[in-house]
Amino acid sequence: MRKINIGLIGCGTVGTGVAKLLLENKDIIIERLGTEIVLRRVADIDIKKDRGIKFEEGVFIDDAQKVVDDPEIDIIVEMIGGKGIAKDVILKAIKNGKQVVTANKALIASHGKTIFKEAYAKNVDIAFEASVGGCMPIIKALREALVGNRIYAMTGILNGTCNYILTQITDKESLFQEALLEAQKKGFAEADPTLDIEGFDTAHKLSILMSLAYGININFNDIYIEGITKITPIDIMFAKQFGYKIKLLAITKKRETGIEARVHPTMIPFDNLLSSVNGSLNAITVSGDAVGDLLLYGYGAGMMPTASAVVSDIVDLSRNILFNSKGRVPFLSYQMEYVKDISILPIDDIVTEYYFRFSALDQPGVLSKISGILGEHNISIKSVNQKSRKTNEPVPIVMVTHIAKESDVKKAFNVISSLNIVCDKPVLIRIEEEDK
Amino acid sequence: MRKINIGLIGCGTVGTGVAKLLLENKDIIIERLGTEIVLRRVADIDIKKDRGIKFEEGVFIDDAQKVVDDPEIDIIVEMIGGKGIAKDVILKAIKNGKQVVTANKALIASHGKTIFKEAYAKNVDIAFEASVGGCMPIIKALREALVGNRIYAMTGILNGTCNYILTQITDKESLFQEALLEAQKKGFAEADPTLDIEGFDTAHKLSILMSLAYGININFNDIYIEGITKITPIDIMFAKQFGYKIKLLAITKKRETGIEARVHPTMIPFDNLLSSVNGSLNAITVSGDAVGDLLLYGYGAGMMPTASAVVSDIVDLSRNILFNSKGRVPFLSYQMEYVKDISILPIDDIVTEYYFRFSALDQPGVLSKISGILGEHNISIKSVNQKSRKTNEPVPIVMVTHIAKESDVKKAFNVISSLNIVCDKPVLIRIEEEDK
Repeated sequence: MRKINIGLIGCGTVGTGVAKLLLENKDIIIERLGTEIVLRRVADIDIKKDRGIKFEEGVFIDDAQKVVDDPEIDIIVEMIGGKGIAKDVILKAIKNGKQVVTANKALIASHGKTIFKEAYAKNVDIAFEASVGGCMPIIKALREALVGNRIYAMTGILNGTCNYILTQITDKESLFQEALLEAQKKGFAEADPTLDIEGFDTAHKLSILMSLAYGININFNDIYIEGITKITPIDIMFAKQFGYKIKLLAITKKRETGIEARVHPTMIPFDNLLSSVNGSLNAITVSGDAVGDLLLYGYGAGMMPTASAVVSDIVDLSRNILFNSKGRVPFLSYQMEYVKDISILPIDDIVTEYYFRFSALDQPGVLSKISGILGEHNISIKSVNQKSRKTNEPVPIVMVTHIAKESDVKKAFNVISSLNIVCDKPVLIRIEEEDK
Repeated sequence: MRKINIGLIGCGTVGTGVAKLLLENKDIIIERLGTEIVLRRVADIDIKKDRGIKFEEGVFIDDAQKVVDDPEIDIIVEMIGGKGIAKDVILKAIKNGKQVVTANKALIASHGKTIFKEAYAKNVDIAFEASVGGCMPIIKALREALVGNRIYAMTGILNGTCNYILTQITDKESLFQEALLEAQKKGFAEADPTLDIEGFDTAHKLSILMSLAYGININFNDIYIEGITKITPIDIMFAKQFGYKIKLLAITKKRETGIEARVHPTMIPFDNLLSSVNGSLNAITVSGDAVGDLLLYGYGAGMMPTASAVVSDIVDLSRNILFNSKGRVPFLSYQMEYVKDISILPIDDIVTEYYFRFSALDQPGVLSKISGILGEHNISIKSVNQKSRKTNEPVPIVMVTHIAKESDVKKAFNVISSLNIVCDKPVLIRIEEEDK
């Protein structure tokens, strides 16, 4: 059988991991694939940095263009990241008729439609397993393993940085800023952590998963996004008292009127397996009509776990090359002609349970006033925690509600915030109970 | 694109689920696959039973032979179970050049070699995702998603019946026999539960997974097997005190000298996610050099979860038919010419931690006597629980050891059992701590 030639562009953390894995596990990949995968070219602007890999003469170069144009190369592996050069490289690779592997969630979430359209026209495969969930084969699961299921919901912890920080705040009662610094020191957070901590990275991933699950065009812009920067030890402590942990979740549900799609800090009960996913680990639950709930759990980032997913894509595309079966599985799980646009519902339309923390003066009748206003807005309280402290300082009143509508909550909050007994802006954290 | 014709043989629980899923989710399968999967024939000896499905005229027949011989049928789905007729049906289907989907773990574990050899010779695909872990795509994960990894260990809860029974014993302090009756009443255990409760079903599955992970011929006979019939509430209670839950685990580890492969009740710490897998659910952790630990969790049995896996196989093989890419992924993950025989180590060779319960007379010096004998056999104790009761009745002495060798444990037990202060046969349960 003929060998498969790889051109790897971008040799940062994950790119280096891919090169290492292809070289160190070459034997076992041959035993499984039946032929050799040759790392023909690796391009990076920084060719001086030692990556601990001994490339053969002439393999490691600084000219990405030369890799994309190399007629011997079958598969381009884009590991540059970002939406600039990476996009040009991928589009050029497609134009040259090369198969493409990428881990670039931001690019796919933003420009997937263009890229897939070009790839489809050229009968080129684009694989992107590593873009969501690191080593977890969630994309393969959605595209292949769950192919007989109508998927109606997904809930995931998809960002290791946020999960690491939240675990720190929970276990060590750190403040957000301390936990972020710790995460940066340990390499779990970037120097500019905005993409992660503000929830954008999670939303990029969610937009890809929703497209695969529901057969819709990738829609990142309409996802409701709230990051973790406002999470405090006090809310984590109260959550614990109510039997919940706080996680940054990606949540989507298919409803008759449209799709729910939201990323926000969420309280989940201790007996939900997702509440036990700690540190930089990721997990996702997919709910389908035949499988019920299926959960995947593993390292969602890091050099080698992500490289594992990239190599699985490389082997998948190699098989398509060897068997001349390009396009065997559609990029986004559904055949192009069936991909629809279904709107994402505004956050005001969701119904869920809530945790509220009000900061109010310790005066008689405060709780009755607040709960009265909630009641007028169809919000019924499941559980309350208020400790009188005989002080002039504001005290926290925390409560958990039954199912309520987000728009009602907003209206009630407007009224409550205007009361002069209420001091700070009320805190709201959504709760995700498992559907019974 | 041309349609794919299916012949389903055996319309029991899972077979019925497959027929239902193919019919009820036909639209969504077309949107993903790009063509229709037609349920052309369904055969079962009992054609009178109402399965709640309206088959088209002439589809449902009692003659399996007619299905296997139908030249229009592309894929035979064997849902008969057992090792008799099922084997004949599959071999005949292969002979007729048809692709085969099966969920029959017992058959593959026992006759896989013959079946795969025939299939290879005829360039026919055999798919068997539903044979292990119900809806969990563990076979796809091993064959495809983890293709770049050297896999060195797997640990799984692979039998829903056993897990349901153990959960009952744990939560309700039932005795084994009561819990089994309860499981049978609820449909979680068969009338003859031997295959499940004695660990054979778990071992069948383990033999398949090991073959896929390590590239070895399927070897069921050398797996060490111990069922759950001797598990008592008292050991579960002591386990809890030491911070463990008891689960029936399939465990395999690749060691330099060979492969560890064993199925037995095992104590696992509370913080291992597997300890939270309750009721009829299944889960498996795969450890690879790149991924670290990857865990899958979901329904390991039941009509629709299993049907979901069967349908994913049907679609996979349909894609191979449509793209003429049969044999694209080797049956057992490795190319035939690389499949090796690696011996399974005898149980005496394993090293692990142990829980012991001795039943001894409440006399001075008993503990020192027992621990002395253990020490002489290189078994060092991590933790002990002995409560003196000032009674003439035997009292339990329970302990947890550090890492010890099984052969040493056996020798020590021989000596300890012969002491006249020791009353009953000592109880031994292996412990699985996560590798640090």
